Amino acid sequence: MTPKTPKRKQAKPTASSAVERGDKAPHEHNTSLEDFVQFRARLNVEILNEGNLVINRFFALDTRTYEAGALDVKTKELLGLVASLVLRCDDCVTYHLTRCAEERVTRPEIFECLSVGLVVGGSIVIPHLRRAVDRWSELERLSS
Amino acid sequence: MTPKTPKRKQAKPTASSAVERGDKAPHEHNTSLEDFVQFRARLNVEILNEGNLVINRFFALDTRTYEAGALDVKTKELLGLVASLVLRCDDCVTYHLTRCAEERVTRPEIFECLSVGLVVGGSIVIPHLRRAVDRWSELERLSS
Amino acid sequence: MTPKTPKRKQAKPTASSAVERGDKAPHEHNTSLEDFVQFRARLNVEILNEGNLVINRFFALDTRTYEAGALDVKTKELLGLVASLVLRCDDCVTYHLTRCAEERVTRPEIFECLSVGLVVGGSIVIPHLRRAVDRWSELERLSS
Amino acid sequence: MTPKTPKRKQAKPTASSAVERGDKAPHEHNTSLEDFVQFRARLNVEILNEGNLVINRFFALDTRTYEAGALDVKTKELLGLVASLVLRCDDCVTYHLTRCAEERVTRPEIFECLSVGLVVGGSIVIPHLRRAVDRWSELERLSS
Amino acid sequence: MTPKTPKRKQAKPTASSAVERGDKAPHEHNTSLEDFVQFRARLNVEILNEGNLVINRFFALDTRTYEAGALDVKTKELLGLVASLVLRCDDCVTYHLTRCAEERVTRPEIFECLSVGLVVGGSIVIPHLRRAVDRWSELERLSS
Amino acid sequence: MTPKTPKRKQAKPTASSAVERGDKAPHEHNTSLEDFVQFRARLNVEILNEGNLVINRFFALDTRTYEAGALDVKTKELLGLVASLVLRCDDCVTYHLTRCAEERVTRPEIFECLSVGLVVGGSIVIPHLRRAVDRWSELERLSS
Repeated sequence: MTPKTPKRKQAKPTASSAVERGDKAPHEHNTSLEDFVQFRARLNVEILNEGNLVINRFFALDTRTYEAGALDVKTKELLGLVASLVLRCDDCVTYHLTRCAEERVTRPEIFECLSVGLVVGGSIVIPHLRRAVDRWSELERLSS
Repeated sequence: MTPKTPKRKQAKPTASSAVERGDKAPHEHNTSLEDFVQFRARLNVEILNEGNLVINRFFALDTRTYEAGALDVKTKELLGLVASLVLRCDDCVTYHLTRCAEERVTRPEIFECLSVGLVVGGSIVIPHLRRAVDRWSELERLSS
Repeated sequence: MTPKTPKRKQAKPTASSAVERGDKAPHEHNTSLEDFVQFRARLNVEILNEGNLVINRFFALDTRTYEAGALDVKTKELLGLVASLVLRCDDCVTYHLTRCAEERVTRPEIFECLSVGLVVGGSIVIPHLRRAVDRWSELERLSS
Repeated sequence: MTPKTPKRKQAKPTASSAVERGDKAPHEHNTSLEDFVQFRARLNVEILNEGNLVINRFFALDTRTYEAGALDVKTKELLGLVASLVLRCDDCVTYHLTRCAEERVTRPEIFECLSVGLVVGGSIVIPHLRRAVDRWSELERLSS
Repeated sequence: MTPKTPKRKQAKPTASSAVERGDKAPHEHNTSLEDFVQFRARLNVEILNEGNLVINRFFALDTRTYEAGALDVKTKELLGLVASLVLRCDDCVTYHLTRCAEERVTRPEIFECLSVGLVVGGSIVIPHLRRAVDRWSELERLSS
Repeated sequence: MTPKTPKRKQAKPTASSAVERGDKAPHEHNTSLEDFVQFRARLNVEILNEGNLVINRFFALDTRTYEAGALDVKTKELLGLVASLVLRCDDCVTYHLTRCAEERVTRPEIFECLSVGLVVGGSIVIPHLRRAVDRWSELERLSS
């Protein structure tokens, strides 16, 4: 997960946002995409402002990892997605799904990427697969 | 976790169910057993309807895994439970606890199975052990 | 995570506590520190009352693990914290952060400990790092 | 894995044993069953002689975990086997296979237990499945 | 890892092969690529001949997972490689590197794929990264 | 694991070293400390010479992580050790044990650090604990 905030989703913070509701930390899949983005942005600021050199460099390196090189951005986001799925991190999956949507990955491509993660990682991945599919459908609704 | 919906728990969707409350995805242990079952059933339908051959076959294979063979169903569900606990997946633990309840596994048997998972997996398993015990007690109340 | 309840946080259960709200199990980071402490205390009692010898001895051993010996308590809590972070257990991180606060670990020490966990465990740790930092700031506010 | 040495396999240390070949530590599956048993026995002695209270109690608790209770020994060894497989520890798998052989678990039962671990843990488990099957066949040859 | 044997590597079993040396199971990275391929082929036969329905279907499904669909074969093998790296399975990494070599993935593409796995999985991945790079160089020498 | 080569251990490469024996990659614990150090040094050179920006920066950051700051070097190496143990990476454990020896950590301190990892990570850690203790004893013999 790169610390960069996904561009599209931040546009319209509403009255129901995490910040306004106080200190409830959105997390995993119990939260809306908007709450996730808000919490992520607020904490990234708090972490980077602390000035811990190792952490700040890691965050910068993480962003750099997904830039185009020998492989294009879309392929790298798919790599980030499958790695996040087999390691079973819902927040990381949500982040890479958001980036995949921005890179115009199609629904069948997402499902094939998830199918690799499912077979490699096994049935223990299924609850995360469900949340990933639910999130992707949410992203499709948001962009239509 | 097999994709088959546990039989007993689906009977009476109420006004507080996930579907009626909108797109809030129940997950982990913040949700009631009913919300978990509803979300699981809804997403299984969405995933299987997509028609990805690998995912659909995996789901079918997952169901088949726990059928009686050289080992009986009860033993296999206990195997699924301990594997889910050491891999620390609350949703998978909830599913296998539900199936164990249907197979009439007793409370002391559940605790012994969980104790194996605790010793193999270590103290990092304890938060999942707490949620497992809380869920089991909920299942006992539902069946009494 | 030791089964011992952190001393400071239990003092004033309020009307919003998990117990009074019914059977909603607080978990991970969606919950307040107070809800986490209440749920943890209630389930520890339920688990220990079951009388499973292996589980009860494991809980006792877990507490003993963090007592002073060749290494002091503060160092051992930092070890527990980094182990919890790389294994990505929010509840365990919360517990050890609470204990670190009691042992007067400073904010820069916490960040350095977290930075080791981040580099060892990789970007998959970042969502847990965010929740850890958010929790630490909450603990600082509570103690000021 | 309990620290107790499997009874049957220790009988005839030969000239090719690890101890006699010097300090080469047998491990994983590159070693014969005999080398594994020798290294395990030698290091258990070294560890327990150190007198670290927490470690020694953990080893005692680990042995106790697989004793008969609400579940019989055979079922508990199968639980230990599947947990070891999904956590992908060849040494732990070897240990529980040895104990399963002592408890007269059949080859079809072993394969069903491994099949649960394969489906729960995914294709990443396959290399460990291969070594488990190879080890089981070795155990069958030794007992015939 | 699909159970299909990589085509190119099986051609010339030599006198030093695992089968001829007896029961020493090649594994991880202590073995030559040839020994790995031989052991893998021999055990796949033993496993499939057992006739466990769930295991056999899983192996068939695993092969199917990497066939061309919405994503091409090369992309899917890169997904398999990064998933294997973050889950830290040397055998699985070796398999997917072999397949990537067959699909004419370039050295810079391999390094970018590995860099994603390194950042996602952290420094704990480094020993596997070393063995992956060593294996890739071996594959380059074999194909030149 | 930082990519920096431990200073003390490189002094006397002998005729039995990995480089001279050809392309056999030392790994895990089947190898001597010397073989591990040689393989590590050779592959670090090969990896860094490739010029992949992300990987090279990660290696530099990894070294930086264990430098003195709010926490001293010894404490940070103990953090690296326990993180490596619970994530069950023998090579990483070997590296941090080597660094701990250089920082004059005592045997009882090592055992207490390992005991935390054992309790947090569970019995699945035991095979790695054995190899860690065997390695530590080897380091003590080398320094005496």
